[in-house]
Amino acid sequence: MTELLDQPAAEDVEPSPYRLVDCDVHPIMKGGMGDLRPYLSKAAQRRLGLDERRRLTTAGHREAVSIPRNLLYVNQAGVLRDDARAPDGSAPGADPAFTARQLLDGNGIDRAVLIGGEVLGLGALPDPDAAAVIASAYNDWLAQTWLAADDRYRGTLVVGAQDPALAAREIRRAGQDERFVAVLLPLTNILMGERHYYPIYEAAAELGLPVTVHPNSGEGIFRTSPPMAGGTPTYYVEWHTGLSQVFQANVISLVCHGVFERFPNLKVVVTEGGIGWIPDVVWRLDKNVKGLRDEVPWITRLPSEYVADHVRFTTQPLPEPKRRSHLHALLEVARADRTLMFSSDYPHWDFDEPLHVLTALPPATRERVKARNAIETYGDRL
Amino acid sequence: MTELLDQPAAEDVEPSPYRLVDCDVHPIMKGGMGDLRPYLSKAAQRRLGLDERRRLTTAGHREAVSIPRNLLYVNQAGVLRDDARAPDGSAPGADPAFTARQLLDGNGIDRAVLIGGEVLGLGALPDPDAAAVIASAYNDWLAQTWLAADDRYRGTLVVGAQDPALAAREIRRAGQDERFVAVLLPLTNILMGERHYYPIYEAAAELGLPVTVHPNSGEGIFRTSPPMAGGTPTYYVEWHTGLSQVFQANVISLVCHGVFERFPNLKVVVTEGGIGWIPDVVWRLDKNVKGLRDEVPWITRLPSEYVADHVRFTTQPLPEPKRRSHLHALLEVARADRTLMFSSDYPHWDFDEPLHVLTALPPATRERVKARNAIETYGDRL
Repeated sequence: MTELLDQPAAEDVEPSPYRLVDCDVHPIMKGGMGDLRPYLSKAAQRRLGLDERRRLTTAGHREAVSIPRNLLYVNQAGVLRDDARAPDGSAPGADPAFTARQLLDGNGIDRAVLIGGEVLGLGALPDPDAAAVIASAYNDWLAQTWLAADDRYRGTLVVGAQDPALAAREIRRAGQDERFVAVLLPLTNILMGERHYYPIYEAAAELGLPVTVHPNSGEGIFRTSPPMAGGTPTYYVEWHTGLSQVFQANVISLVCHGVFERFPNLKVVVTEGGIGWIPDVVWRLDKNVKGLRDEVPWITRLPSEYVADHVRFTTQPLPEPKRRSHLHALLEVARADRTLMFSSDYPHWDFDEPLHVLTALPPATRERVKARNAIETYGDRL
Repeated sequence: MTELLDQPAAEDVEPSPYRLVDCDVHPIMKGGMGDLRPYLSKAAQRRLGLDERRRLTTAGHREAVSIPRNLLYVNQAGVLRDDARAPDGSAPGADPAFTARQLLDGNGIDRAVLIGGEVLGLGALPDPDAAAVIASAYNDWLAQTWLAADDRYRGTLVVGAQDPALAAREIRRAGQDERFVAVLLPLTNILMGERHYYPIYEAAAELGLPVTVHPNSGEGIFRTSPPMAGGTPTYYVEWHTGLSQVFQANVISLVCHGVFERFPNLKVVVTEGGIGWIPDVVWRLDKNVKGLRDEVPWITRLPSEYVADHVRFTTQPLPEPKRRSHLHALLEVARADRTLMFSSDYPHWDFDEPLHVLTALPPATRERVKARNAIETYGDRL
């Protein structure tokens, strides 16, 4: 790894202050939802079933509240790396210091963007006030535990999109802490182009924070629509293969609704959504918008240009075709030299070694993927 | 066009008995559902509201029954080519003789595979018996009108997948007519890997008929799930861009359920579903099945090999990237030299000129796309 990182950058690439930026690291809560107690009012603790005085309990769980998780599709191998467990025996990925040593020191990572593990499914929670309260407490917990533990950590502040006004307020509140470099939008069953989200985009663009989406395991599952088009998949392997469809749909929606015309400063980061689908979506969009422009007259540029200017992607999972030339053709279409950022997805089961990913990329693209594209996306806060 | 067709085939390609085979042509019914009357029992006519003695009517419609169509997303340009209208003023694509002159003579097409226009949405009809009755009558209508009108026409017999046993019976009945070369499966909201469909696959494989799927404009719309993952799209341009997701999902489902292990002779033709998504799906599937094979132990080969051996695609709509090298990389990954067949989608609005499509392909692939792959897919019946 060190050798690769120490290679001089290609001539046309501006030198980066960081060797490697990891754009998708998941902090895990050691004690589950109970860890949020210090960041919640007494009333909120009572509302969420987290107060100590409660006599009734949910058998087997310490808390009455839980954030929706995907319990329909089970990865029998487990989804967390067991070797990411700190010596104290806490859950994998739950110890900021151990993660700093194993992931950051071990791989020469200078900045790691944290994306909440437990709150990914927050968009499936039916109660908008509960979602907002949990989001605020989670952001405070992240700032006072992980962000305080190591200067290399940066945070993604989470919002409950169920109430866009409350979400915008939370962005303006938590975003005052400049260690937060992005906003995590846990998806609901409303596509991202819809007006529902505009207060969130307005606040994020105002603070210069990209809006991040990530597979949340709750996409549609709890809200009547299946997680793939055409029907309900049976197996985890189907769900995991098809999960990129949610991101395809949301990019189509963002472009067609003219969101990037309305919010010219907005950036969207598609984390862990793959990149193999980008050609299909941008080619179809470019062609269709030419033929059907009267329906969406606010689209003044080619959709592929909006995507190149406003949407960013992360490497994990990187496609692994048999021929490297096919990967490189994909990277050209996806304009990876501008749009792609390194991510490990630590401590998840499908974690990517930086060396593994970076050697697959052409040298000039590799340099930008390592850090430069992340610096341009997250700006000075990084 | 003639020049291109008259070029000698590349040396390694077996000469084809046909110059060009069009795998996606839509016959339109001149008089709407009423055209099926001669092919329905009196009881069925009464059940479908097609009997003459009926006193009540649905204002503005001649028939009480209709096959679900997409009325949510409107292509304001119209979906049928106005120049496909015969001199008698009937609907575009409704006159077999005019279509033979305009499409077949005009483009040097030796075989055209007909895929029912009005019955594409049959999978959304709630009543399984009504769907089965309509399918049978439609197949008889197609045989006695279009297939009788020109020797170059071949038919796709339609089934109502709502009752798989009735569908299998219809395949064995209508399939006796060797001018039918495939089975049209109008999609429901059950993914194609599910056991629900196995009687249909068994009958189709027994007769050597590929199972064809096609965008049906009813996918999910009438059965609670949206036509894209992640939410309900707003605009026609979104729906039309995202419609490939239904085919992505169904190919994932077919492979993961081991359908091609269970039915080794089964072929599936994805018509008008695009090909730009193939790399994303086969790369993700190959990778995921390696990591999660215990969940689907019946998968004994790489998913990309099942797709190459069992799934076929048609050209319209062919991706139109700025650089032809990107299209050619896609064609390699999609193994287009084996899997891709020419289609015009006549008389739909996004009809492709054969010349336009064929010149975009590398010469050796072009030769196979023109006719050879269709001959291998549809067999002697073609």
